Amino acid sequence: MLPFDDAPLSRDGKVLILAYDHGLEHGPVDFEGLPGSEDPARTFEAATHPAVTSIAVQKGPAEAYYPSYEDEVDLLMKLNGTSNLWMGEPDSAVNCSVEYAREVGASSVGFTVYGGSNHEIEMVEEFRDAHENAREHDMPVVMWSYPRGQGLKNDTKPSTISYASRLAHELGADVAKVKYPGSQEAMEHAVSVAGKTKVVMSGGSKTTDREFLQSVKAVIDAGGAGLAVGRNVWQREDPTRILDALEKVIFEEASVDAALEYAE
Amino acid sequence: MLPFDDAPLSRDGKVLILAYDHGLEHGPVDFEGLPGSEDPARTFEAATHPAVTSIAVQKGPAEAYYPSYEDEVDLLMKLNGTSNLWMGEPDSAVNCSVEYAREVGASSVGFTVYGGSNHEIEMVEEFRDAHENAREHDMPVVMWSYPRGQGLKNDTKPSTISYASRLAHELGADVAKVKYPGSQEAMEHAVSVAGKTKVVMSGGSKTTDREFLQSVKAVIDAGGAGLAVGRNVWQREDPTRILDALEKVIFEEASVDAALEYAE
Amino acid sequence: MLPFDDAPLSRDGKVLILAYDHGLEHGPVDFEGLPGSEDPARTFEAATHPAVTSIAVQKGPAEAYYPSYEDEVDLLMKLNGTSNLWMGEPDSAVNCSVEYAREVGASSVGFTVYGGSNHEIEMVEEFRDAHENAREHDMPVVMWSYPRGQGLKNDTKPSTISYASRLAHELGADVAKVKYPGSQEAMEHAVSVAGKTKVVMSGGSKTTDREFLQSVKAVIDAGGAGLAVGRNVWQREDPTRILDALEKVIFEEASVDAALEYAE
Amino acid sequence: MLPFDDAPLSRDGKVLILAYDHGLEHGPVDFEGLPGSEDPARTFEAATHPAVTSIAVQKGPAEAYYPSYEDEVDLLMKLNGTSNLWMGEPDSAVNCSVEYAREVGASSVGFTVYGGSNHEIEMVEEFRDAHENAREHDMPVVMWSYPRGQGLKNDTKPSTISYASRLAHELGADVAKVKYPGSQEAMEHAVSVAGKTKVVMSGGSKTTDREFLQSVKAVIDAGGAGLAVGRNVWQREDPTRILDALEKVIFEEASVDAALEYAE
Amino acid sequence: MLPFDDAPLSRDGKVLILAYDHGLEHGPVDFEGLPGSEDPARTFEAATHPAVTSIAVQKGPAEAYYPSYEDEVDLLMKLNGTSNLWMGEPDSAVNCSVEYAREVGASSVGFTVYGGSNHEIEMVEEFRDAHENAREHDMPVVMWSYPRGQGLKNDTKPSTISYASRLAHELGADVAKVKYPGSQEAMEHAVSVAGKTKVVMSGGSKTTDREFLQSVKAVIDAGGAGLAVGRNVWQREDPTRILDALEKVIFEEASVDAALEYAE
Repeated sequence: MLPFDDAPLSRDGKVLILAYDHGLEHGPVDFEGLPGSEDPARTFEAATHPAVTSIAVQKGPAEAYYPSYEDEVDLLMKLNGTSNLWMGEPDSAVNCSVEYAREVGASSVGFTVYGGSNHEIEMVEEFRDAHENAREHDMPVVMWSYPRGQGLKNDTKPSTISYASRLAHELGADVAKVKYPGSQEAMEHAVSVAGKTKVVMSGGSKTTDREFLQSVKAVIDAGGAGLAVGRNVWQREDPTRILDALEKVIFEEASVDAALEYAE
Repeated sequence: MLPFDDAPLSRDGKVLILAYDHGLEHGPVDFEGLPGSEDPARTFEAATHPAVTSIAVQKGPAEAYYPSYEDEVDLLMKLNGTSNLWMGEPDSAVNCSVEYAREVGASSVGFTVYGGSNHEIEMVEEFRDAHENAREHDMPVVMWSYPRGQGLKNDTKPSTISYASRLAHELGADVAKVKYPGSQEAMEHAVSVAGKTKVVMSGGSKTTDREFLQSVKAVIDAGGAGLAVGRNVWQREDPTRILDALEKVIFEEASVDAALEYAE
Repeated sequence: MLPFDDAPLSRDGKVLILAYDHGLEHGPVDFEGLPGSEDPARTFEAATHPAVTSIAVQKGPAEAYYPSYEDEVDLLMKLNGTSNLWMGEPDSAVNCSVEYAREVGASSVGFTVYGGSNHEIEMVEEFRDAHENAREHDMPVVMWSYPRGQGLKNDTKPSTISYASRLAHELGADVAKVKYPGSQEAMEHAVSVAGKTKVVMSGGSKTTDREFLQSVKAVIDAGGAGLAVGRNVWQREDPTRILDALEKVIFEEASVDAALEYAE
Repeated sequence: MLPFDDAPLSRDGKVLILAYDHGLEHGPVDFEGLPGSEDPARTFEAATHPAVTSIAVQKGPAEAYYPSYEDEVDLLMKLNGTSNLWMGEPDSAVNCSVEYAREVGASSVGFTVYGGSNHEIEMVEEFRDAHENAREHDMPVVMWSYPRGQGLKNDTKPSTISYASRLAHELGADVAKVKYPGSQEAMEHAVSVAGKTKVVMSGGSKTTDREFLQSVKAVIDAGGAGLAVGRNVWQREDPTRILDALEKVIFEEASVDAALEYAE
Repeated sequence: MLPFDDAPLSRDGKVLILAYDHGLEHGPVDFEGLPGSEDPARTFEAATHPAVTSIAVQKGPAEAYYPSYEDEVDLLMKLNGTSNLWMGEPDSAVNCSVEYAREVGASSVGFTVYGGSNHEIEMVEEFRDAHENAREHDMPVVMWSYPRGQGLKNDTKPSTISYASRLAHELGADVAKVKYPGSQEAMEHAVSVAGKTKVVMSGGSKTTDREFLQSVKAVIDAGGAGLAVGRNVWQREDPTRILDALEKVIFEEASVDAALEYAE
C-alpha cells in the first residue's frame, strides 16, 4: 500500500472525486434535467476546480476527453460498470484493463464490488486482478463497495455500510466508497472498522445545497476522507458554486453555514 | 482514440458502411429475393463504389474475397455474430480475433453488444478485449449497439436508442451503429448523448428508395455520421443507383429529391 | 485461405474423406455388423486406396496407427467429438489441439459445429481458435456443419442444409461437410450459398451400392466437391470395390451405372 | 514437501496460528464485544507474543500493517475468503495470488476448501494452483478443510472431520486446519488418517479459559500439531494472558491447571 | 504413442498398478477394517513387491512418501479425483498438473473420465490438456474410463464397458482402466475394440482370494494387460501373499490353483 497522502488522488489526505459514469450506469435519463450535462467536456471542465482531486469516468469518455485536460485534471479510471438495461442479480462488466487505464493517463483506478450478490465471488476475483495489476504501478485502488443482491433487504443500514467499508479494507482497497449510513455516528463506525483504508461517501441523487453539505460535513467529522460526488455537482446549473462550498467543508473543515456563505 | 476524420473508415468525417453479414445472422433466406445476391463477390463489387467507405463482413467472406478487392475496398471486419438457428437470450460468438482481422487486411473492426441481454456482462468484456487489441494497432472500433433481451420490451423507442449510443461512447467505440429511433428529433438526441462517438444508422430491411433516403437524410440532418446499410443496397437489382443517391445525401448533403433525380 | 486445389486434402479440387470416428461418436455398436471393423488398421488400410484424399480420425487412432501409414495416407485430424453416452443439448469436446494434430502429422483439421444448439456460441468460439491456429500453418479446415438442438425440429430440410453450408463459409471453413438435403436441386442451393467454400456430403448410414452412389452422383452434379464417407465404406466386406466406384463417380464424373460396372 | 520442522510456520514442529480474517468472513459484528478489536494493529501486536508462530490475515490488513511488524511476526497469507453477506452454496473467492503474498512478505499461505460443497471441484482446482505456486517458493500450505454444503447435515461429526484431514493430506496440504471433532479419541483418528500432514484445531467461538485450554490440550495429546485461534485470543481483553497459557499447553505440554496457574 | 512395452508402467507388456487413492475418493471409511491401512507408507511398502509395476496415488501422498521409495517403486500420479462428500453429477477435480507430477518423480499419469456425465465435455477437454502435456515428456497416460451419470442406468453392462475402453482409445490413452464386465467373453470384446490401447481391470471391492484371482485370470485370458488393484491388496492383512499370487497369474500366466498354491 502506498503512503496515501502522497497519492495524486488525495490532497492533504482528503479526497473529492467527481464521478461521471452515470451515462453507463443509469443512461441518458440522468441528463434530462439539465441540457448540456450529457456533454462529458462540461464535467471535465468542472473537474479543473481545485477542490476536485480526481475525475472518475469510464474508458470511453476518458480516451475521448482526457487528452484535453491531462494537465489540469487527475484521472481515476472506473474499470467496471453495467447498464441498467440489464436487470439480473447485481454484477458489473470489467470494461477496461489497468494497462489501458495507464495508457490513457489514469493515476488511480476504481472498481465496484457488490458484496452479497450471487456474483460476489467472481467480482472479488476480478477485483484481485485489478488490485494486483494496479499495485505493480503504484496506482491507488478505490472500491465502490455496495452490498446488494438476493440476500440483502436494505443496503444502507449502518451494519451493512460498516461491513462494506471493512470488506474494502480486507480486500486491499486504499479507499472505500460507501453509501451514507444515515448518521455521523454510523459513519464513525464505518470509518473505524476500515483500518488504514480511507472511507469516502457516495454522493447519491441530487438534493439541496444545505442537506448535501450537511451529510458531507458529517462524513468529515466522522473521520471520513471525503466524497465521491456526481449528480450533486454536474446536475447543478453552476457546478463551481457547490465545489467552492465542498472545498471549504472538506479541506478547510468549515461549517456548513460558512461554506454556504462563502459560495454565495 | 484516433482522430476520426483520418480513419480509413471515414471520408470527410462521414461514413457509409456496406454490411454483408446476413448470411450468418439471418441465413440464406435473405438471398431468396434476388438470385446471385448470395455471391459475396457481387457485394464486394458494389463496395468499389466511391460512396462506400468500408465493407463489413465476417471472417469467411473476408479471407476468401478480400484479396481480390484490397486495392479498391476498405475492410471492416465484423468480429462476432450468431446464426438465427439459435434462439436463446441474445448473444453473439466472437468468431474472429483482432489479430486475424489485421492479417486479412482489415483497417477497422465491428462488434455487436446487446445491452440489456443476460449476456451483456460477457459481451462487454469481450468488447473490451477487442477494443484494447484494436487500439494497439490504431484500428477504429464500431459497435453494433442493439439493446435486446429479457428486460426489454421495445428496442427502438427513442430512450433505448439514446442509451445504445451512449453505451457505445462510455465503452470506447469510435462509431455507434444504432437502429433508427423513428424521427429526426430522436436521432438528434441519440447523437448528442454520444459525445465524440460518431453515430450511424443501421439500414434495416429493404424499403422504397424514397423512404429509405428520407430516413438517411434525417440522420444526416440530425448530425449523424452516416449509415451502415446492407439489404437496402445489395438486395436491389442495381446497387449502383442507390449508392449514387446515398453519396449525394451523405457526402454532399443533397436533398432526397435531388439525390433521386441524380440517380435516375 | 489457401488455394484449395493445392491442398493435400483435395485431388483436382475434389475430395473423398474416409471418416472413421464412429467409435467415439456412436460407440462399438457400429462395429457389430462386421467383425474386424473395430480395428483401426483395417480402415487405415482402406485409406491407401488412391480414391481417398484423406482419412479423418480422432487423436487416439491417429497417434497409434498413422505412423505406419504416413507415406500412403493423408491425415485429417478431427479435433472435437463426443460419445453418445451423453445425451444433453448437442455439444462436442475439443479433444485435440491443432498443435498436437500437426505433431502427429495431420495436413488438415476437422471440427464439428452444431448451429442452433444452445452451445453454438461456445462451439463457434472454439472453432475460431482452431481455425486461426490452423491458418498459421496453412492447414485447411473442414467444418462438420450440423444444425441440431432445441430450436430445430428437422435438421435435413433444404433450408437448414443451406444455412449449414453458408455458416461454414461465413466462419472461414475451407470445406463444409453437410447432410444430404434430399435432392440434387437442394444440394445445388447449398453449394451456391457457400461461396468459395467447398461442400461435401456426409455419407450417413449404410445403404445399397446403387442408392449410395446415386446420392454421391447428385452431389457431384450439383457442384459439390465430393464426399466424407464412413460406414458406407468400412462397414462393407470389401471397401475396395465401393472405393473403386466412388473414384469413377467423383474424380472421373462417370455415371452410376458405369461406376458399378467398373467395380464389379 | 518441505521438512515441516524447518518451516517458519512451526516451532519445534508445533503450530500456533493467530487468525484474524473475521472482518471478511463474519463482518464487523465480531468486533462488537470489544471496542478496539476492529483495529488490525492490536492483533498484529498480539502476534508478537513468542507463542504465536504466524498471523493469518487477508491481503488488505497484510499490506497495510505487516510492514510495521515484519521483524517480529511471521505472516501466513490467507488466499481466499468470502463475506457472509452472501448466502449461496459454500464457496470462497481467491482474493490474493501467491505471488502477491510473497511480495507482501508471507512465508506461508492458507486456503479454504469446502469439501462436499457444489463448488468443491472448483475450489480444489484453485487450491491446486495455489499449492503448486507455493511449492515453487517452498512456502508451506495450510488448508482450512471444512466440509460444508448441500450434501452435509452435520459438519463436526468425527467421520467428517477425519475425512477433512485426509482430504487435506490427499491434496498436498502441509497443515490441515479442522474443527474440533468433540473428543480426544476422535481427534486422534483425524490425526492418524492425515499421514505426514500436520493437523491443527480451529479455535471456534469464544469460550472460558479452562474449556478452551482443555480442548487444546486434547488436541496436543491426540498428536495434533497445535491450534489456529482467533476469537479466543483477540476477543479477550488481555490476549497476552491466554497466549501465555497456550504456550505452556502447546509447546511445553503442560497440564491445563499448570498453564492457567502460570498465566494468572 | 510410446512403444508400450518399454514404458516403466509395464513389465513385458503387462501391468499391475497398485492403486491407493481411496482416502480421497471414499474417505477414511475404507481404512476401518484394517488399522494401519490409513498409513500411506504401508502401501508404498507393498508396492516394492516385484509384481507391482506402479503405485497410483494422489499428489499429497506422492509428495510426502514417494521420496523414500523412488528407487524401488514406479510412480503413476493420479491427476484428478473427488471426495464422496459431494454428490452431484459425476465430475472430478484436476488436483495436480503434469508438470508437478514430473517434479515429484512420476513416470506416468492417470486421469478419470466419466463418459456420459453432464461433465463429459469438460472432463474430456481436461484430459486433452493432461494427455498432450504428458506426451511432451513421453509419459504414458492411463484413463480411468468409467461411464457414469444421468444418462446411464447400469455402468457395468458389457456394451458400456466396451464403449469405455474404446473411448479411452479414441481419446489417446495408452491404458484403459475399466470395470470388469462380468465375463471373459465380454472382456475380450472390450479388449478388441480398444485397438492398441491396453486394457486393465479395475479391482473393485474386497473379495476372496479365489474369486478375485479368477476374475484377474479371465482378464488375462481375454487379452487384457493386467490389473489396477487397491482394496484387494492393501485391505488384506498380508499384501505380499496376494501379490505373489497375482504375479503368477499376470506375468507367468499360471492357473488360479497354481497361483494360490504358490502363495500359500
